[in-house]
Amino acid sequence: MKHFTSVGDVTDVNALVQEALLLKKDPHKYSALGKHKTLGMLFFNPSLRTRLSTQKAAMNLGMQVIVMNVGTEGWALEMEDGAVMNGTTVEHIRDAAAVIGLYCDVVAVRNFPTLVNKEADYTEQVHHQFIKYCKVPFISMESAILHPLQSLADMMTIAEHKKAEAPKIVLTWAPHVKALPQVVANSFAEWTLASGYDLTITHPKGYELCEDFTRGASIEFDQQKALMNADFVYVKNWSAYHDYGKILPVDTSWLLDEQKMSVTNHASIMHCLPVRRNVELSDELLDGANSLVMQQAENRVYAAQAVLKNMLENNF
Amino acid sequence: MKHFTSVGDVTDVNALVQEALLLKKDPHKYSALGKHKTLGMLFFNPSLRTRLSTQKAAMNLGMQVIVMNVGTEGWALEMEDGAVMNGTTVEHIRDAAAVIGLYCDVVAVRNFPTLVNKEADYTEQVHHQFIKYCKVPFISMESAILHPLQSLADMMTIAEHKKAEAPKIVLTWAPHVKALPQVVANSFAEWTLASGYDLTITHPKGYELCEDFTRGASIEFDQQKALMNADFVYVKNWSAYHDYGKILPVDTSWLLDEQKMSVTNHASIMHCLPVRRNVELSDELLDGANSLVMQQAENRVYAAQAVLKNMLENNF
Amino acid sequence: MKHFTSVGDVTDVNALVQEALLLKKDPHKYSALGKHKTLGMLFFNPSLRTRLSTQKAAMNLGMQVIVMNVGTEGWALEMEDGAVMNGTTVEHIRDAAAVIGLYCDVVAVRNFPTLVNKEADYTEQVHHQFIKYCKVPFISMESAILHPLQSLADMMTIAEHKKAEAPKIVLTWAPHVKALPQVVANSFAEWTLASGYDLTITHPKGYELCEDFTRGASIEFDQQKALMNADFVYVKNWSAYHDYGKILPVDTSWLLDEQKMSVTNHASIMHCLPVRRNVELSDELLDGANSLVMQQAENRVYAAQAVLKNMLENNF
Repeated sequence: MKHFTSVGDVTDVNALVQEALLLKKDPHKYSALGKHKTLGMLFFNPSLRTRLSTQKAAMNLGMQVIVMNVGTEGWALEMEDGAVMNGTTVEHIRDAAAVIGLYCDVVAVRNFPTLVNKEADYTEQVHHQFIKYCKVPFISMESAILHPLQSLADMMTIAEHKKAEAPKIVLTWAPHVKALPQVVANSFAEWTLASGYDLTITHPKGYELCEDFTRGASIEFDQQKALMNADFVYVKNWSAYHDYGKILPVDTSWLLDEQKMSVTNHASIMHCLPVRRNVELSDELLDGANSLVMQQAENRVYAAQAVLKNMLENNF
Repeated sequence: MKHFTSVGDVTDVNALVQEALLLKKDPHKYSALGKHKTLGMLFFNPSLRTRLSTQKAAMNLGMQVIVMNVGTEGWALEMEDGAVMNGTTVEHIRDAAAVIGLYCDVVAVRNFPTLVNKEADYTEQVHHQFIKYCKVPFISMESAILHPLQSLADMMTIAEHKKAEAPKIVLTWAPHVKALPQVVANSFAEWTLASGYDLTITHPKGYELCEDFTRGASIEFDQQKALMNADFVYVKNWSAYHDYGKILPVDTSWLLDEQKMSVTNHASIMHCLPVRRNVELSDELLDGANSLVMQQAENRVYAAQAVLKNMLENNF
Repeated sequence: MKHFTSVGDVTDVNALVQEALLLKKDPHKYSALGKHKTLGMLFFNPSLRTRLSTQKAAMNLGMQVIVMNVGTEGWALEMEDGAVMNGTTVEHIRDAAAVIGLYCDVVAVRNFPTLVNKEADYTEQVHHQFIKYCKVPFISMESAILHPLQSLADMMTIAEHKKAEAPKIVLTWAPHVKALPQVVANSFAEWTLASGYDLTITHPKGYELCEDFTRGASIEFDQQKALMNADFVYVKNWSAYHDYGKILPVDTSWLLDEQKMSVTNHASIMHCLPVRRNVELSDELLDGANSLVMQQAENRVYAAQAVLKNMLENNF
C-alpha cells in the first residue's frame, strides 16, 4: 500500500490481520527492513497508545523515528489554500508537509476533529493536505473521522478470540461527559464489515453514524435486543453526527453491566481506551475475565508494524 | 533486582557502586545487552539531569528509549481506584500503566510530591500504581519521597573521593525561597546509612525528616558543631515534614560560606543540582576546588546504567 | 572545526559546501562515524526544519540523539553571572550547560533574540554561556543574530543552481506583520560574502543591518534597481537593527511579484521558511518554477551532516 488512512487502502483485510499476527509471534524478524528509513510521527493532539505503539513498531523494524508535537514544538499552521497569512499562523501546511516529506520516508499524523466544522472534519482536510504535499507514504494515526490503526488491532483481537467462524459483533454507544469524535465507531464499523463480519450497531436515536461507514450493519435502538447472542461487544461513546458534535439528552442509562451482558453469548468486551471508568464501562466489566481491552492495546504494536512493513516492502 | 525504588531494593549497595564505577571506565562494554529492549521514560515533572543521563545510560546498553511527558503529551490520569470518572481525568492510571507495560520492557517514572497530601505522597501512590499495573521492572526517576538514582550517583562520588575508610558525612539543610520536597535528603540519608557511613544531619528545629529514613544518623541543630571535622558536606533544602510542606521562619542564616567550612576536614561540597546559586550555596563554594557537584552529575549516567544492566541481566 | 556558530568558524566555505553536496549523494556513507557519540539538541524556541533536519543528519552518521525542549521540559534558567537566585529561575545556565556537556559529545542549541535587549542579543549571551561551560563542540541551531546551518544550506543551493561563475545575488527585505529577528539576513550576508559572491542588499531606509555582517555588499534602497539582472533573489523580512526590534512605517509595497521579477535574469527565488504566504511572498512566486525553497530545506540535512562529520573527525 502507498498510504494507510482507511480500510479502503487495504487490498485484503484478512491477509493484513494474519501478517500482523505473525509479527506478534516474532517481532524482530524484520529488524533490518527499516535500515536507514525514517518515520516522522507528528502529533496535533494527545496520544498514549498510538504514540508508544507506533514508535515501538518502527523500532522493531529497525527504522529511525522522529517524534514531533506539532502544536507546541513547531509553528502554528495555516490550513487554507490561498490565505493571506497576516494573522496568527506562521507556516502553511503545504510548506510544512512538503518539508517533512523531504526528511522522512514515511509520515504519520494524528489530527482530531473540530466537532464544529463538519465539512472540514469529514473531508479530513489536514490529513489530505499532508498526503498531497508530503508525497511520501502516509499513515493516519487517527484523523477527524477514522482511526485505522486501532481498527486493525481490533480485527486482530477478534481473529484471536473468536470461537465461531461468523461471530455476532455488537457496537454499542456508551455514555460520556464530553463530546467525543465518531472516529473509532466509524472505523470499527467499516473494518468489521470489510472483514465480512456480522455487525449490529446500537445507540440512542439521534446518534446515527455517517452511513458511508455503516452500510451493511444492522441498526438497533434497543440495546438489550442488540446484545442478544453477541460474541463481541465493542463499547464506545460518540457525539452526534447529524446534529454535529452535540451531546443529546438520553433517557435511560446506556451504561453496560453484568445483568445486561447476561443475554450475550458470554461476549468479550472491547474498548479502544482511554476509557472513563464507571462512566462508559464499569470497573467490573473492564477488569472481568471477558475484557479484551489490554489485548487490543497490545495488538496496536503489531498492527502498526504490519502497516509499516507493507509500506517498506512496496515503496522503496 | 526487579524494581529500583529505594535502597531497600538493592542487595549489596557497595557492590552496585563498584559495578557503576566499572561501567564509568568502559561505558560501551555491554552495548549489546539491551538489544531489542525498550525503556519507557515517563515524566510528570521537569527534568534535566535525570532525563538526559537515564536516556544516555539506556543507549549505552543498546536499548531503545521512548520518552514521554505524561502531563502534556498524554491524557490526564485518574489516580483513585473505583472513581466514577465524570470529571477532568481521561484515563485511569491502572489502564495507562498496564498499556505502557505492554510496550516497554522497563518503565521509569518521575512524579513529584504534592507537598499538600502527606499520606498520598509518603505512600508513593503514583509509583506504586505503576508498579502494580505495568508489571515490568520499574525504575524511580524520583518519587514523592525518594530519588534513588541520585543517591546511587552520590555514593559513587563519595567512594571515588573519600580519603578515609570511614569519612564523616554531614547533610545540612540550606535556605531556599520555595517549598521543596524532602526527596533528596530522605534518599541520601538512607543510602549513606545503608552504605555503613557515619552521617550527621543538621537543620533548624522543625525541619526534622521522617525517621524511617534517618534512623541511625546523628541529628544536630547547631550547624557549626555538625560541620566539625566533616569530610563531605551535602547541602540541600527541604520543606518541613511534620508541618507538612511548610517553610518555617528560621532566625539565623544557614547559608554555608568559606568561614563556616573552615572547621571541616577540608570537606568536599556536594549538591544534587539544580541549585539556587547564592541562596542555597554561594558561587564561591560551588565553583571552588572542593566542589563535587559536576562529578555527582556525571555519575548519574553510570548509576542509571548499573541499575539498567542489573535489571536486564536478572529479568529477561 | 571545534564549534559552528558563524562563517568565521569555517576555514574554507567552498570546501564545506562541496563536502555537504557529496554527503547528499551518499548520505549513509559515514553511518559508522558517529557510533557511541551523542548529539544533544536543546530548543528554547519552536523549530520544524532545524529540529528534523539536524536530527536526521545525526542519525545518518550513526549518532545517538537526545532532543530537549529546554523551556517546557527542563528548569527555568538564570543567565546572569553572580545572580542571587531568589526569583523564578531554578538553575543557572553555567550549571545546566556544564551538565549537558558531561552527557553529550556535541551540543546544539537554538535560542532566539529578545528583540528588546540589543546588547544581550548581539553578544549571543546564551550561546556563549553554553560554549563556555559545556566545553564540548557546539553547534548553533540559530542564535539571536545568526543562523549558520541555514546559510550553509543556502550556499549549497546556490552552488547547485548557479549558471554563471559569478552570479548576482540580491537579498531583499519583505513585508511582515510581526517583528522578526535579523538572523537570517545577517547570516546570509556573511556567508555569501565569504563565498566570494557579489551581494546586493535592498530594503527600506531604516532597515539597515549591522555592518559587521554586510561589509562588502552593495546597499540599494530602490528594490527595482537592486533586482536588475539578479540571478538569485533571497527574500526575507527583518525588524530594524538600529531602532532595535521595531517595525517601521514603509510607504510602498515591498511584496515581490512576477512583474518586479521581470527585470531579473530569470532569477531563482529563495526563502528560508517558514514563510507567510501572500505577505512575504506570493503563492505565485513560491510555487513557481523558479522557486528554490524546497531545495534549500532539503539541503538543511546535508549542511548539518557536513558540520557534524567535520566535528566528529576533528574532535574525537
